[in-house]
Amino acid sequence: MAREVTHEERGPAILDESDTGDDGKIYVCQCGLSDSKPLCDGSHNATADEADGVVYKYANDDADGERREIDEIASEDR
Amino acid sequence: MAREVTHEERGPAILDESDTGDDGKIYVCQCGLSDSKPLCDGSHNATADEADGVVYKYANDDADGERREIDEIASEDR
Repeated sequence: MAREVTHEERGPAILDESDTGDDGKIYVCQCGLSDSKPLCDGSHNATADEADGVVYKYANDDADGERREIDEIASEDR
Repeated sequence: MAREVTHEERGPAILDESDTGDDGKIYVCQCGLSDSKPLCDGSHNATADEADGVVYKYANDDADGERREIDEIASEDR
C-alpha cells in the first residue's frame, strides 16, 4: 500500500485560482503516478489493489506501466 | 539530481482558494521532502547539492534526515 516514486524537481509547482476546476477545487496528485503532475489525473486508481505491507515500483512511475514489489533499496554504503 | 520518495496516499489532496498565500499563489511540493505536503515548506533546499546522475534516498523522506546514494532498487522478481 505504498510505492517509491522518483522525484527530479528541486522546487515547488506554483498554482493559483486559474488552476481550479469547475467546482473551484484543485486536485493535487499524492499517489505519485499522475501524468499531469502536480494535478491528479486519476492514476491513483492503479493503486487500489496494492497489498498491505508491500512497497511497489511502477515502471516509469506510470499507472499504465508494470509494477514490481520492492525487496530493498540497496545503497553503496553497506 | 533525483530522489526516491515513498508515497502512501491513494488519492489526491483537494485544495481551493483558501490555500493560497498572501500572494494568491499555492506552492505545491515537488521535491517530495516537505513536512507540509502537499504544500512546499522549503525542504527542496536540501536537494541543491545533489550530484548529476545520482539517485538518493533521504531518511524518512525528510530534508533534515541523512541521505544515501541508491545503488539499485532490488525486486523479488529477478
